[in-house]
Amino acid sequence: MIAFSGSAVRPSTRPAIALAIGDPAGISPELTAKALALPEIRDAADLLVIGDARVFAAGARTAGLEPDVDVRKSADERPGATRPALLDLCHLDPATITVGIASRAGGEFALENFRRALELAAAHRVDAVCFTPFNKAAMRAAHPGYDDEIGYSSEVLGTAGPASEFNILDGLWNARVTSHVPLSAVAGSITRERIVEAIRLTDRSLRAANVPAPRIAVAGLNPHAGDGGNFGREEIDLIRPAVEDAQREGIRADGPFPSDTVFVRARNGNFDAVVTMYHDQGQIAMKLMGFDRGVTLMGGFPFPICTPAHGTAYDIAGKGVANVGATRAALLLAARMGAARRDRRVAGASA
Amino acid sequence: MIAFSGSAVRPSTRPAIALAIGDPAGISPELTAKALALPEIRDAADLLVIGDARVFAAGARTAGLEPDVDVRKSADERPGATRPALLDLCHLDPATITVGIASRAGGEFALENFRRALELAAAHRVDAVCFTPFNKAAMRAAHPGYDDEIGYSSEVLGTAGPASEFNILDGLWNARVTSHVPLSAVAGSITRERIVEAIRLTDRSLRAANVPAPRIAVAGLNPHAGDGGNFGREEIDLIRPAVEDAQREGIRADGPFPSDTVFVRARNGNFDAVVTMYHDQGQIAMKLMGFDRGVTLMGGFPFPICTPAHGTAYDIAGKGVANVGATRAALLLAARMGAARRDRRVAGASA
Repeated sequence: MIAFSGSAVRPSTRPAIALAIGDPAGISPELTAKALALPEIRDAADLLVIGDARVFAAGARTAGLEPDVDVRKSADERPGATRPALLDLCHLDPATITVGIASRAGGEFALENFRRALELAAAHRVDAVCFTPFNKAAMRAAHPGYDDEIGYSSEVLGTAGPASEFNILDGLWNARVTSHVPLSAVAGSITRERIVEAIRLTDRSLRAANVPAPRIAVAGLNPHAGDGGNFGREEIDLIRPAVEDAQREGIRADGPFPSDTVFVRARNGNFDAVVTMYHDQGQIAMKLMGFDRGVTLMGGFPFPICTPAHGTAYDIAGKGVANVGATRAALLLAARMGAARRDRRVAGASA
Repeated sequence: MIAFSGSAVRPSTRPAIALAIGDPAGISPELTAKALALPEIRDAADLLVIGDARVFAAGARTAGLEPDVDVRKSADERPGATRPALLDLCHLDPATITVGIASRAGGEFALENFRRALELAAAHRVDAVCFTPFNKAAMRAAHPGYDDEIGYSSEVLGTAGPASEFNILDGLWNARVTSHVPLSAVAGSITRERIVEAIRLTDRSLRAANVPAPRIAVAGLNPHAGDGGNFGREEIDLIRPAVEDAQREGIRADGPFPSDTVFVRARNGNFDAVVTMYHDQGQIAMKLMGFDRGVTLMGGFPFPICTPAHGTAYDIAGKGVANVGATRAALLLAARMGAARRDRRVAGASA
């Protein structure tokens, strides 16, 4: 179906993923080693771990695994198809890191791995980026302007369009119109245009993950979705018009729905995504449904950036008991979205 | 342990419960008949159904049961210990009601049953009140000033103290500081005193349900409970001081906790109750955990008023398939709280 025309775009059945090792004081090195050992991950993508070979080896030791990677000093080539590669930046001796303690050195390590991964994806050396968990205090110590992964990615990539975090659990996506703002500021921050933008980005991101006509539920803001205006008018004045705007663009959006039942319906398979108005509206539901098993995706960038939803788990670091499930899910989503990105590029190059 | 001193207080091992039949067009008559047939309900309390014998018989027919009650025309006596009684108000012929349609006649029927139940409990003829589901539109048609069960109960009983709805599921209680207000008004409605009042009422109500030293978690208002003031200051300025006020009164309150993990911890058994700041904060969690199986309790009245959390289920009315689980749970909670109320009264009478 697809014709290949240039050497810049290598025909391969598998996407390439850069996997940046996260905070070295937590479970990130262990998770990286465990994920690389999974046959379904090695089948799904050509992997390039970015970090330090000694940190990776320490993670493998914690996991009780033999390191099985091609160690490279340069990222000039895409990762190979036979076994995973590791780009060794030689920038951290794990002996200098105390397990379970956030440090500036740990933050610098993770930040540099992440930056290199983003740059490789921007240069199409890889099709997607994943990272194992960061520690926010360590990241801030390393880079005082560090706010979150979205802000840092925009900074590195020089992007300025709408970007947003998606929380994904067992195929159910959650996006939000507002995020880290006081509850008192939520109602004032919601505009018809921002709601439409969040719906659009959700639709586009789900399509990029091979969900062809995503069914998007939009949550109300007020109790009982305002009860016909009795408990607030945002549903009537802003949210419903935004849903209709999106529908006119061909998006399968619906709502607003009362936020205390929309996730029950979504869990039952009625929707692919729920767009919520504020942070806890979605997070209360997703965490109860087991979101720690889930994936966080930064949407709105030219390529997928995925990470497990849980944190660095300092309390169990070094013990070999970290559960690789969410990292596995993050890599599989990155592989699916990365493959689609590459197919689009190949199709474009051959056009 | 307890001495009985007067004929007004009858020594019995079981509490008496008035069970008002709710909306006749839905599943309420069927649920009433099904609940009365449960051996554990007949063991737990002396039951007095309030309604119309014909409506009850129709409910039993739908349920596929033989009506097994002592039909009475007066409520001068407490219900008997041998089998349930039915106070026949002879005020509704079920043939005049269309299944699945809310009507003023249906609302008048349910309202009158409820009023009589409240009056009997106020007069200590029964120790607790339960009702099967009401239809709000029918109630409003019957009584234009009808807002909700709390407002109506306050009106009938002439009470004016703080009253609040509790949602109870599998032993986990949820109370809220604000309820049916727009989200934009939530932050402005929360005061230190209102939070303390909600914590106190929760503590008192749980103790009245025989939970001796309830562990009460208080949710924050803002994302990540304000993240140390970064996303809002209510946790620092209002909620934490209120929790400390309650602690000084000997209440086992703690918090504020981020609202997206507090229910995960509560589900794991860490708390008996969660006090939330606004409607959906608790409702999103409770409904996902299966609150339709749960119980709603009106707290702050001299006696317990309980009802199943689900509604009239017009879509399955008349089919005999209604699940009696939540009604059963409501009656068992009413029995436990009613018994404690009577014990307190007996102890007072003998003092």
